[in-house]
Amino acid sequence: MLAAPVNPADINMIQGTYALLPDLPAVGGNEGVGQVVEIGSHVTSLKPGDWVIPTDAAFGTWRTDAVFNEDTLVKLPRDIPLLCAANLSVNPCTAYRMLIDFETLGPGDSIIQNGANSSVGQAVIQIAAALGIKTINVIRNRPNLQELVHRLKSLGADHVITEEMLRKPEMQDIFKKVPKPRLALNCVGGKSTTDMLRHIQQKGTMVTYGGMAKQPVTVPVSAFIFKDVKLRGFWMTQWKKDQAQNKDRFSGMILNLCDLIHKGQLRAPACTEVPLKDYQIALEASMKPFTTSKQVLIM
Amino acid sequence: MLAAPVNPADINMIQGTYALLPDLPAVGGNEGVGQVVEIGSHVTSLKPGDWVIPTDAAFGTWRTDAVFNEDTLVKLPRDIPLLCAANLSVNPCTAYRMLIDFETLGPGDSIIQNGANSSVGQAVIQIAAALGIKTINVIRNRPNLQELVHRLKSLGADHVITEEMLRKPEMQDIFKKVPKPRLALNCVGGKSTTDMLRHIQQKGTMVTYGGMAKQPVTVPVSAFIFKDVKLRGFWMTQWKKDQAQNKDRFSGMILNLCDLIHKGQLRAPACTEVPLKDYQIALEASMKPFTTSKQVLIM
Repeated sequence: MLAAPVNPADINMIQGTYALLPDLPAVGGNEGVGQVVEIGSHVTSLKPGDWVIPTDAAFGTWRTDAVFNEDTLVKLPRDIPLLCAANLSVNPCTAYRMLIDFETLGPGDSIIQNGANSSVGQAVIQIAAALGIKTINVIRNRPNLQELVHRLKSLGADHVITEEMLRKPEMQDIFKKVPKPRLALNCVGGKSTTDMLRHIQQKGTMVTYGGMAKQPVTVPVSAFIFKDVKLRGFWMTQWKKDQAQNKDRFSGMILNLCDLIHKGQLRAPACTEVPLKDYQIALEASMKPFTTSKQVLIM
Repeated sequence: MLAAPVNPADINMIQGTYALLPDLPAVGGNEGVGQVVEIGSHVTSLKPGDWVIPTDAAFGTWRTDAVFNEDTLVKLPRDIPLLCAANLSVNPCTAYRMLIDFETLGPGDSIIQNGANSSVGQAVIQIAAALGIKTINVIRNRPNLQELVHRLKSLGADHVITEEMLRKPEMQDIFKKVPKPRLALNCVGGKSTTDMLRHIQQKGTMVTYGGMAKQPVTVPVSAFIFKDVKLRGFWMTQWKKDQAQNKDRFSGMILNLCDLIHKGQLRAPACTEVPLKDYQIALEASMKPFTTSKQVLIM
């Protein structure tokens, strides 16, 4: 391996609270980029020097060397930045699929998302901007709020608001500039989610892909009956399982994302590079509240 | 009009709490059957003596006489029982659409529903039985519980359980006999709904069409992400609006339901017939808890 990030799902997997747990003993890490050192005599799609990312979860990316079947790897172009490659196979893919698979959105449409500063959230902002889709981005109030607002806007965010703002009449000012969102992306749960749901368009969809607040999603019955909102979930791991017979869909998506990277439309999240031997520092840092930098292990 | 039931939505409409409110002054009642007395010179699809039901909500069925456009009426076969005709255009249609439109179910599949003693619930039991779909029916504990269980089973219910039972390990005994449901129908909200959701199949759908408990629907984040359940809503009034350009779909469904009535597979709910002049008695009776008989105004 060359580099591998520390994602919240990695931590949950180590804590044993994730829905997918590898057999023990196991290597941590679900995402990352490696370089092919040597190939077996039957390998046709890869050669030494190629950059590769894992197609499946629970791959164990926090390591220096390993032997893998070529079917479990997807080749990347070598001309994208290392940190983009390391952060490609989970979060930008989640953002891409959620923007594509649930509502048919086009230029001028809008979406709303909470946890907009998460790695997925930042990818959503950039991919949506590349597609001409307006984004309303909800974040928690915090020290240095303006700095974060500025950073997300520099990625292409159209509107950045705090969770408290969701309940204020000033929200209507936003809807003078952009239409009400047909799609809401939720990685928080609890009150933030119910408040966000209030602003979704009639017959719109909310997709839940995380539960940072460790609270359930609460929906007024009237939203289902009279507003006809659809509530769905998304889990990249499940999507990959469902596409097991159709791996071209995954590699096709990866090429689309690399294309955005080439065009400068998709950047890696803010990262802190940590040598693998200092993994303890990286794990501790990744669990602090209001982290704005992703810990990436460098092998 | 000949006969018109008193439904919960009618009461909500009078209370002003419904999502659809007619201009005042207005006549109550959304459902019922009438008989054509006289036709205008341009009317081609109806003749005096025909039985008709309204195609739209907020029709004002609690009256003796009215003049309507033929487009707002659908003709019924005359050989179905009067109480079946009076109760046809809202509740059995809701049951039918929910069983057809959200999951593709066939013989041997199962569904779960709460409020199974409601008019919609009773229609669900009968239509599902006609289609070979197994039903797990949740009702509130009450005096004379066994009597109600017996009545619902006589309609074709496969399993009838109380809300408390949803949380007990004995539920697993049911799933030795029928598969886990792919479809859950919810007209309650609150704890009953969350408990019901727990038993739904991976990738299954819950459709909310009522909120009798006046509490929101609460969903663990994991149900969305790891179980991939879909939460949807259904409102017959909206369905009819959406089909405004395609009225054959409504009349086709009515004929399908009449066919089930002919075959003895769909009966009217238990009814109490009340003369229109005694409407106050009917309204009061319809608002009592644990009503097991539907009040039907007879003109």
